[in-house]
Amino acid sequence: MGTVTLLSDDQLSAEALAVFEDIRAARGTDYINNFWRALAHDPATLRATWDRLQDVMAPGALDPLVKEMLYIAVSTANGCSYCIHSHTAAAKARGMSPQMQAEMLAVIGMAMQTNGLVTGLQVDVDEVFKA
Amino acid sequence: MGTVTLLSDDQLSAEALAVFEDIRAARGTDYINNFWRALAHDPATLRATWDRLQDVMAPGALDPLVKEMLYIAVSTANGCSYCIHSHTAAAKARGMSPQMQAEMLAVIGMAMQTNGLVTGLQVDVDEVFKA
Amino acid sequence: MGTVTLLSDDQLSAEALAVFEDIRAARGTDYINNFWRALAHDPATLRATWDRLQDVMAPGALDPLVKEMLYIAVSTANGCSYCIHSHTAAAKARGMSPQMQAEMLAVIGMAMQTNGLVTGLQVDVDEVFKA
Amino acid sequence: MGTVTLLSDDQLSAEALAVFEDIRAARGTDYINNFWRALAHDPATLRATWDRLQDVMAPGALDPLVKEMLYIAVSTANGCSYCIHSHTAAAKARGMSPQMQAEMLAVIGMAMQTNGLVTGLQVDVDEVFKA
Amino acid sequence: MGTVTLLSDDQLSAEALAVFEDIRAARGTDYINNFWRALAHDPATLRATWDRLQDVMAPGALDPLVKEMLYIAVSTANGCSYCIHSHTAAAKARGMSPQMQAEMLAVIGMAMQTNGLVTGLQVDVDEVFKA
Amino acid sequence: MGTVTLLSDDQLSAEALAVFEDIRAARGTDYINNFWRALAHDPATLRATWDRLQDVMAPGALDPLVKEMLYIAVSTANGCSYCIHSHTAAAKARGMSPQMQAEMLAVIGMAMQTNGLVTGLQVDVDEVFKA
Repeated sequence: MGTVTLLSDDQLSAEALAVFEDIRAARGTDYINNFWRALAHDPATLRATWDRLQDVMAPGALDPLVKEMLYIAVSTANGCSYCIHSHTAAAKARGMSPQMQAEMLAVIGMAMQTNGLVTGLQVDVDEVFKA
Repeated sequence: MGTVTLLSDDQLSAEALAVFEDIRAARGTDYINNFWRALAHDPATLRATWDRLQDVMAPGALDPLVKEMLYIAVSTANGCSYCIHSHTAAAKARGMSPQMQAEMLAVIGMAMQTNGLVTGLQVDVDEVFKA
Repeated sequence: MGTVTLLSDDQLSAEALAVFEDIRAARGTDYINNFWRALAHDPATLRATWDRLQDVMAPGALDPLVKEMLYIAVSTANGCSYCIHSHTAAAKARGMSPQMQAEMLAVIGMAMQTNGLVTGLQVDVDEVFKA
Repeated sequence: MGTVTLLSDDQLSAEALAVFEDIRAARGTDYINNFWRALAHDPATLRATWDRLQDVMAPGALDPLVKEMLYIAVSTANGCSYCIHSHTAAAKARGMSPQMQAEMLAVIGMAMQTNGLVTGLQVDVDEVFKA
Repeated sequence: MGTVTLLSDDQLSAEALAVFEDIRAARGTDYINNFWRALAHDPATLRATWDRLQDVMAPGALDPLVKEMLYIAVSTANGCSYCIHSHTAAAKARGMSPQMQAEMLAVIGMAMQTNGLVTGLQVDVDEVFKA
Repeated sequence: MGTVTLLSDDQLSAEALAVFEDIRAARGTDYINNFWRALAHDPATLRATWDRLQDVMAPGALDPLVKEMLYIAVSTANGCSYCIHSHTAAAKARGMSPQMQAEMLAVIGMAMQTNGLVTGLQVDVDEVFKA
């Protein structure tokens, strides 16, 4: 159990319920995952997070599957277990194959390794890398 | 300056020099960036890191540009300034447009935000997300 | 289970027992939470941590509830689940309302997001911000 | 220098310029700090970040100074140098005294320390701490 | 459960099985821990990780127990629960006494604390500390 | 420059000056590094940090050089540049050879890598690893 309870539909404010209806419509399922039920104690943050998430994760110059994998990469470096599980499920739903997942994890591991080497060595940034 | 000096070519061991020659051949340039010059104090780690990096970042189920962006995502969550600079330069060289960079950063920011919300709420993982 | 066992009262050294008695007196309850029972294997660290914690968390220029929320903010960024749970409980005991908790989490999420954007952008510090 | 250039006013899109005008009006100064100039390459993220920041940092159940200190606490745990500098300046502008800053840092240090001890010990969360 | 299933011996590719045989021979036990069973979905990463781990953790200028404790220190700062548990077990098997574990944790806690103080204070590096 | 100024000797409170005298006596040099000059704004934290540091880093079941390397490992995972520089200098002063530094960094890089792989895979802890 978390630091707040998970709200059931009949415990929601009107604003929170409206967000849940948007989530259900966007995803084509009645199931609302625990993150949103925990966040529903704060309808303003719930609304802002859901709306911004829709914009950020929409197809653009990057496709949604690449965006899901970027999400997993950040969540792994931060150690957010829930985020890794939920976005791995989302990435699989968007077509991440076992081979793609394996390559993504290999890159994450490689980046973590060189992050540690570079940071321990305190390497100065080369002039050629600056914008 | 870092916690070790950057080795010039005439300070290298034979094993380190061989890795530098591989880097030059793979990249088609004489320029060796600071990370490798710092790592050259330890030829075994230099060799293992360069060889594994080539395997991990090669085209596969994911294309090399996606891999560079995953690298940046991890490095940003870890706050590794050198890594962010060097892999942003590499991603640009592989075709990352300003719009792609902007979307990548927006996803990283979104992931960081929900990582904080989820972690502070201590949300339990939904059964449906488990492998 | 952790990397050490939790010590029961009859397994304690005299030094550790003395700290437990101080904790019980300060908190007005017999209950000793798991952190202290795990730390009791090292009476010197137990004593130093408890004593310093009392000084640091005491009322001063900042009130104890603000201090508990700062503790939660750090623990969330570090992903320390136990710390988030124990200090959220402490903050509630010191009067953190659901609305205060929601606002605290919104700030944490916002800070995480801009941390990611700033770090990915590698923004130089403005001269006006330096002490 | 960062991974993007800092945009001057005459390089801005109309949407980005509108956000800059909002920032100037809200803060009563012409000065726009580097974060916004770097973020201006992506007007949608610039707008969303500024608008949400205003909502999150506004007075509510927590006062704005407490919110600034929570921001600093997160940024310190994440090691975001720019964020620490800019929000320390903001906190000072909102009345953070040297003594308040010292106590805030002492709490941050204490939390970091017990985060390390708890994580290394892998302490299970006490039932009494759960929501 | 994780984001991938744990592979049993009869689900392994030939390459993965060969690594498992190496692990069994090196450790003198049939037991293969969960990390390797999860990683076995990607035989190339499994092979590279096992081989490099053997090199890195072998006796050298540092003894293997010191290396295990360094591993725990990194894993604690990163909050990797599995890594802390598995390398604490490995360190104990290599002779880490309860007193050594306690001192290791005290150093980790101390380092975390000063990391937070230094980062919050944004202290410039003294010239005398540079290589 | 940091978020506080560095205090010169003639700006110190009597309590802070007493700590500086202890540092000078313990180290056999007049030089006081920037961390202590920044921390001197808060004499209570200065005193508690210095005194506890002396206890934690003293010879015990672990030798002081091992403790310095553990300190660097934590500071690298946390990305604390000042801490990495100052404790690398301290480790060198206590006899860390270039080969020892190289092996320490290789372990740190290896640990970072497997931390990323384990966290991305969300591997459950084996029963045999629990205390």
